[in-house]
Amino acid sequence: MVANTRFIQALKREPVDRTPVWLMRQAGRYLPEYRKIRAKSQNFMTMCKTPELAAEVTLQPLARFNLDAAIIFSDILTIPDALGLGLDFIQGEGPKFAKPITNIAAINKLRILEPEQDLNYVMDAIKIVSKELAGEIPLIGFAGSPWTVATYMVEGGSSKNFSKIKSMLYAEPDALHKLLDILAKNTINYLQAQIIAGADVIMLFDTWGGVLSHNAYLEFSLRYMQQIIASIPSGTPSILFTKNGGKYLTEIAASGCYAIGLDWTADLQTAKSIVGDKVALQGNLDPCILYAPDVVMRQEVAKILNIFGNDSGHIFNLGHGMHPDMDPAKVEFLVNTVHELSGR
Amino acid sequence: MVANTRFIQALKREPVDRTPVWLMRQAGRYLPEYRKIRAKSQNFMTMCKTPELAAEVTLQPLARFNLDAAIIFSDILTIPDALGLGLDFIQGEGPKFAKPITNIAAINKLRILEPEQDLNYVMDAIKIVSKELAGEIPLIGFAGSPWTVATYMVEGGSSKNFSKIKSMLYAEPDALHKLLDILAKNTINYLQAQIIAGADVIMLFDTWGGVLSHNAYLEFSLRYMQQIIASIPSGTPSILFTKNGGKYLTEIAASGCYAIGLDWTADLQTAKSIVGDKVALQGNLDPCILYAPDVVMRQEVAKILNIFGNDSGHIFNLGHGMHPDMDPAKVEFLVNTVHELSGR
Repeated sequence: MVANTRFIQALKREPVDRTPVWLMRQAGRYLPEYRKIRAKSQNFMTMCKTPELAAEVTLQPLARFNLDAAIIFSDILTIPDALGLGLDFIQGEGPKFAKPITNIAAINKLRILEPEQDLNYVMDAIKIVSKELAGEIPLIGFAGSPWTVATYMVEGGSSKNFSKIKSMLYAEPDALHKLLDILAKNTINYLQAQIIAGADVIMLFDTWGGVLSHNAYLEFSLRYMQQIIASIPSGTPSILFTKNGGKYLTEIAASGCYAIGLDWTADLQTAKSIVGDKVALQGNLDPCILYAPDVVMRQEVAKILNIFGNDSGHIFNLGHGMHPDMDPAKVEFLVNTVHELSGR
Repeated sequence: MVANTRFIQALKREPVDRTPVWLMRQAGRYLPEYRKIRAKSQNFMTMCKTPELAAEVTLQPLARFNLDAAIIFSDILTIPDALGLGLDFIQGEGPKFAKPITNIAAINKLRILEPEQDLNYVMDAIKIVSKELAGEIPLIGFAGSPWTVATYMVEGGSSKNFSKIKSMLYAEPDALHKLLDILAKNTINYLQAQIIAGADVIMLFDTWGGVLSHNAYLEFSLRYMQQIIASIPSGTPSILFTKNGGKYLTEIAASGCYAIGLDWTADLQTAKSIVGDKVALQGNLDPCILYAPDVVMRQEVAKILNIFGNDSGHIFNLGHGMHPDMDPAKVEFLVNTVHELSGR
């Protein structure tokens, strides 16, 4: 088999034969074979922490669909889990920390991890997947942005108003900067280890950067992502995804990343004209279009592809992760349609 | 007492002596006197449906703080409740409909309400408040945007991914347009009745417009809000608030509204330069700044006020509603600080 390099080429804004496509949360509950593994595992983190299982579910969608990239199956909260906050996933409630960060004393106790030891299960899973893929399909390693990871650590889990971390932001900004600095340092080491283990591309998920005010986003989220991106070897492409970050495209494009991940609320045409030839763009179909009839899905895919036409620098993706109730047959149709309609 | 006309003047972009201020959800659980009334009521809708109670809680924050506007205490889901969907508020879960809209047959059965009869409790509350205010403080009437109200009707309550209504949007757009059209017609009549009862200003809350893709926002949310705004008598100022709508300022400013409500993620300086002298702007302090020390709050208020300086057309507000755990003393400090720092 010839190595599929579309994804890497598009990230570098080099010409491609077809638009590469992968889907956020492409390994997940919508796949029956995933649910089978999940049912046999004690909980979600058991899957993440068992390299053979994490590798297996990483590869599941690639066995079904003609995807142009794999993404290692893991979670954005592995770092705080390794820092001893006691992570648990409660059915229907999402992640919960037994020992959330409530004060500066707790922040001062956080340590710099040694990823090869403290998070070895992630590197082991990457090594297995990397070997299985044999250079044919690129593998994405990832981490949460320091701000996003910090929200869970301070709030103790998911949040509606982010009251606790924002109280810290406005009342004790130095404490929050200290927390973000520790997370950035840990993330730099963690991603470095993922690259050494075999990750070809790095993605930063800034799920909650969009809940910040304009200046706070620049100071408390983007700044730390920039530090991380600056630490990634220049040959390894990086993708930065801030949900609801469509208004920060100019600033994100200047961060040093290869590509910006766009959610579905961003207008791709506008985004393209803003970033010009600075970075590639990844996205941004509304995931709910997978509930629509094929004919509608085809139209919507065409609209997105037509914005780039034969221009390089586009990776097709959803604007957000797959939902558990989606139909694998629709995913197959989507992936094939992207390739069909984008053939040069 | 001299009538306080700052709010109306600012909406019309006329000069004001001080920047007017009111706060979204200024009548609410953060006030002990509100919780007292709430404890005596069977449930949330009992408060809304008992004009004396709705009027009382509407006036509570005005007795405490030097606010420049009152907003009638009610809910954005009064219309679907009157349409017979069976609204209930479940502790910790938010609104739930016993009979959500699941198909076109259910949409076809929805009727055009007679607000003076079907929603008389709202008009009765407005009449009481209007009499109490005696023209000294302007009163805001409001409704949810058709799109936002429809999300609750189709999803059956709050939603994370809006899968059901977006399935309808992409698979059966005509059915959704029919639903939005009925809601727009009902909202037009409802707001008309509120104005006749005594509302001086009208506000449309588009809480979920921001979850749509760019084109879908224009077609399924803004379009129907424009119809509603076009129906409001030209002497009655209107405010349009789309949460996460900062990217649609040009289009919203062209809708015919007097003012755009901004959430805290929008950059007010940028917004001002985009809308120019077309409309006033209302907002947009991050509500979480009420958790900060007074000195920080004062700085952040000053930052917002300095953007307008002596220019007219700004109404100070939060970028979102008050949270239940906020301190009334901080609200008092906020309101007084806005007036103090904006004295001309």
